[in-house]
Amino acid sequence: MFPKYDVIVVGAGHAGCEAAASAATMGSKVLLITMNMTTIAQMSCNPAMGGVAKGQIVREIDALGGLSGIVSDKSMIQFRMLNMSKGPAMWSPRTQNDRMRFTEEWRLSLERVPNIDFWQEMVKELLVKNNRVVGVKTSLGLEIEAKSVVLTNGTFLNGKIHIGEKQFGGGRTGEGAATGLTEQLIQLGLESGRMKTGTPPRVDGRSLDYSKMEEQKGDENPSKFSYTDTKPLDQQVSCWITYTNDAVHEELQKGFDKSPMFQGRIKGLGPRYCPSIEDKINRFAERDRHQIFVEPEGWNTVEIYVNGFSTSLPEDIQYKAIKKIPGFENVRMFRPGYAIEYDFFPPTQLKLSLETKQLENLFFAGQINGTTGYEEAACQGLMAGINAHNKAHDKEPFILKRSEAYIGVLIDDLINKGTQEPYRMFTSRAEYRILLRQDNADLRLTELGHKIGLASDERLQRVQSKKEGIEKLLTGLKKVKVDPKIINSELEGLNTATIKEKVPVINLLRRPQIGINELAQIDTSVKQLLNRYDKEIQEQVEVHVKYETYIEREQKIAEKIGSLEEYKIKGDFDYDRVKALSAEAREKLKRIKPETIGQASRISGVSPSDISVLTIYMGK
Amino acid sequence: MFPKYDVIVVGAGHAGCEAAASAATMGSKVLLITMNMTTIAQMSCNPAMGGVAKGQIVREIDALGGLSGIVSDKSMIQFRMLNMSKGPAMWSPRTQNDRMRFTEEWRLSLERVPNIDFWQEMVKELLVKNNRVVGVKTSLGLEIEAKSVVLTNGTFLNGKIHIGEKQFGGGRTGEGAATGLTEQLIQLGLESGRMKTGTPPRVDGRSLDYSKMEEQKGDENPSKFSYTDTKPLDQQVSCWITYTNDAVHEELQKGFDKSPMFQGRIKGLGPRYCPSIEDKINRFAERDRHQIFVEPEGWNTVEIYVNGFSTSLPEDIQYKAIKKIPGFENVRMFRPGYAIEYDFFPPTQLKLSLETKQLENLFFAGQINGTTGYEEAACQGLMAGINAHNKAHDKEPFILKRSEAYIGVLIDDLINKGTQEPYRMFTSRAEYRILLRQDNADLRLTELGHKIGLASDERLQRVQSKKEGIEKLLTGLKKVKVDPKIINSELEGLNTATIKEKVPVINLLRRPQIGINELAQIDTSVKQLLNRYDKEIQEQVEVHVKYETYIEREQKIAEKIGSLEEYKIKGDFDYDRVKALSAEAREKLKRIKPETIGQASRISGVSPSDISVLTIYMGK
Repeated sequence: MFPKYDVIVVGAGHAGCEAAASAATMGSKVLLITMNMTTIAQMSCNPAMGGVAKGQIVREIDALGGLSGIVSDKSMIQFRMLNMSKGPAMWSPRTQNDRMRFTEEWRLSLERVPNIDFWQEMVKELLVKNNRVVGVKTSLGLEIEAKSVVLTNGTFLNGKIHIGEKQFGGGRTGEGAATGLTEQLIQLGLESGRMKTGTPPRVDGRSLDYSKMEEQKGDENPSKFSYTDTKPLDQQVSCWITYTNDAVHEELQKGFDKSPMFQGRIKGLGPRYCPSIEDKINRFAERDRHQIFVEPEGWNTVEIYVNGFSTSLPEDIQYKAIKKIPGFENVRMFRPGYAIEYDFFPPTQLKLSLETKQLENLFFAGQINGTTGYEEAACQGLMAGINAHNKAHDKEPFILKRSEAYIGVLIDDLINKGTQEPYRMFTSRAEYRILLRQDNADLRLTELGHKIGLASDERLQRVQSKKEGIEKLLTGLKKVKVDPKIINSELEGLNTATIKEKVPVINLLRRPQIGINELAQIDTSVKQLLNRYDKEIQEQVEVHVKYETYIEREQKIAEKIGSLEEYKIKGDFDYDRVKALSAEAREKLKRIKPETIGQASRISGVSPSDISVLTIYMGK
Repeated sequence: MFPKYDVIVVGAGHAGCEAAASAATMGSKVLLITMNMTTIAQMSCNPAMGGVAKGQIVREIDALGGLSGIVSDKSMIQFRMLNMSKGPAMWSPRTQNDRMRFTEEWRLSLERVPNIDFWQEMVKELLVKNNRVVGVKTSLGLEIEAKSVVLTNGTFLNGKIHIGEKQFGGGRTGEGAATGLTEQLIQLGLESGRMKTGTPPRVDGRSLDYSKMEEQKGDENPSKFSYTDTKPLDQQVSCWITYTNDAVHEELQKGFDKSPMFQGRIKGLGPRYCPSIEDKINRFAERDRHQIFVEPEGWNTVEIYVNGFSTSLPEDIQYKAIKKIPGFENVRMFRPGYAIEYDFFPPTQLKLSLETKQLENLFFAGQINGTTGYEEAACQGLMAGINAHNKAHDKEPFILKRSEAYIGVLIDDLINKGTQEPYRMFTSRAEYRILLRQDNADLRLTELGHKIGLASDERLQRVQSKKEGIEKLLTGLKKVKVDPKIINSELEGLNTATIKEKVPVINLLRRPQIGINELAQIDTSVKQLLNRYDKEIQEQVEVHVKYETYIEREQKIAEKIGSLEEYKIKGDFDYDRVKALSAEAREKLKRIKPETIGQASRISGVSPSDISVLTIYMGK
């Protein structure tokens, strides 16, 4: 009934969709199995993509040839570049999306990939031979063979929904849980844990009083995620901001004795940086208000997502409390918020390729690895799809370094440090922040994505001509000299020091007062030069010149540390023979089985002296 | 948490959506409760609306002010007027629809009705006081009050899905069943039964070879359902036709020993005129092929609905058999077909208003009444919504006569005859077929719809001006006389008898060879007259003139029989006192409790002599 597939992807959320698309685009025959084809790429939580550090990830996915950026662009209703007042390392694109459009765009995008087949059913079991996964078994008892299997089960594995003192099985509201897989994986030697996440109530926008809120418009000149030719918006929908207050908090506190979190009915840890509203008022009792983002769910629907008000308190408490928020006095709820507990597998059980160490050919991506967030899930799906393809075709794993991408940071963190609570990306997790900017993801990654057969020729050509443009413009700006007689009055107008002799114009660009736009004003020949190049090339040159020293410094460190990554450690290396290792280091190293000295150096509990011992022992 | 509602509608399929929209448009404060807001108005079966007799119903819904016609028009990808080779009583509009668009259009249409609130949850129980329903109780235990409640549970009540020997609870594939309500209703004295329906596999259009099929294009000059200003298509998607054969039947037969139908695991009766493929080859063993309609699911998706191949045989049998269909040799299935069993309540327990006799304020619509089909469900929803509103506002029930609408036929049939198997509408069920045409639904019903506060003023004006136009054009055609000298050669060319003296042109229109178009060719003054009127007015005049005698005859019968409908029978009428009644008639009359003598006359088992006895006894 089914051919033998190269790759089977289980689950069709952000991770599963990217996994299926990447493996199939690279040439694998892929089967995407979902419990419900109607809810492919359903945004279970807020209708938005990107944001701080997450926006960088979407750009990286796009640069490698993934689809999240394109789908987000096609379904966006608002675009904002966050953190524009900070340095370019912090700039983070974010879109508000039409939930229905997002789902539809993903569904149609997947259908356009010729190598993807679809099957709607629940996977109950993996087919395993000699510790190698060779396929899956469905609830109907169908056995489907594949060379690699990617599990992206999200919150569905033994999902349990909590609202106040009530609880019921489910993977998402209105949808059933997935059972069987966790139990089998435990039997096969994997360790599982429990996490929780939550979602706020949905409300009827017609019942809100926006005059009591602050409007949050999209950017005036909105950009977009994808480096391809998707279109920026010429019309945007506004979000709104309001705040909780003492009255809201008081109402919420009345429900604490029925809270599934505070009463211990929820065992799993929730996302620290995306806490429930009850958690916020409990942990930050000194704060008299919390921000609430009122986010429309699409172009036309009246449904509203109440961002910041995630809760699992009883529904009547939710209602009484939300009514006290300014603008919500007459609110009509569509459904209550809830918490959901689900199984995950501590990611230290994975290789850097996202293949499990225990079971060959089995890859994990998304919440099953203990992460939270659409973007975190999507990038893992992309990488798992790539590596499932590579594995199925006897190719080397594709690994991104911490200095190459946030994706590299994320996976390296997960594999080496594991996570006790849902892992979310932050810029602070990256040591090479100035290298890993949202604006240069294509320059960093598209060639890599093209080399593995994922990014298209067109993407590569675009990046190459961008690179050439940057080089040419830099050279040009070095050659053009400006004359004090002509420009000094302009410089004075810009509140920056005058010059005494002719200097290359590029020197001026290093000054904080002078950007590309000011440069063009100062001198007509410079203006003519600049006009020959796209805006994005001008931007790259500006960033490059202004942050040159920082960039170079980080690059040097990355190269130094990178050399440690070259030192491979054999999988069967016997740490017990290295007597000088500390007991803790030995235990962690035996458990994590790092693939390189570099990776070993990042395991918590492995000290620099342990690394020296190891390096000397290995004769390096 | 909730205000007291006028009307609560449970379920948001075709019936629930129309019920919520009609009650709210008439002014009721409505709460629409659905288990999943993402799947509002999900077409569970084929992506099409209308067809023979069903298309007439959609036009009637539209004429009354319902939304199914508008939503279908906005989401159609193909339009065909079926039976154009037959008389106008048989003409039946049908659309192929984009499944995602259809859902979205309904969702957004409902959101635009100001009086509809939404709630996502399962209703577990009715709130009942002294045999009056006063609200509902949800799975979270929320109690919500209302003056009327409309149940439109579709296939969800204790739904059980069958595929071969496997069975699992579910209201639709990928969605859970609804429990609790049936059990409570039985306790409260209602009788329930079990029905089944089925759906075919969905397949990947990319895997089909269309060169082996016949193309079925949309109409060259496509029309549409709604009398409002929705737009006809200027681009259409084709369907395709292929056939089963002996090889297909042989493969299917191999699964008969595992068939849930043939092996007796399914107790409920299925729709006779929409049988499963195994049923077809079993019942019509002499036929060597059955038609298969290959229907696209939308503008862009590759998903295909295999109309005519509904089955609950094991999935491997489905696959082996479907592959033998020409064009399906390399087919990839998305999911298997399945059968679903669900609870219904024999509709003889209802009044003509669709209110239950047992429980006041409780209305049923759709599959819960033992019907099958989107259109059948939608029109019941509309009527239940209207009557739930009327009940909540102490107004008289709104009843359509059998001579006024297919909707009247359907409800009258259900209430009086009940149904053992899923009830589907046919033109043969209507005794006034020539009155109940698709082309005159607005003339029949819009004034009624406007009077109850449902059809808009704009609709009414449109119909009134259409009526005036028809009158004027008729008068005009009666006045214009044509001259033998001028037109006889034209008449000869049309193969129809010449005339000897001047005659009113309207006389010629009665001839089978001459339609409105021919009339225009014959004489320029006639042409000028016709050009002053819309095409739909010309059509009405043509039908009116050509079928005048038939129409008048049916109208007379309808009036005669209609008078029996005037004779009301009191709800507490004691049939035991009428000794002359036959035993069977007495039993049926006591059970059905007809509201009029007319209704009594249509109860199977009540003979004309019983009606005479009754009429005499009642002194009429």
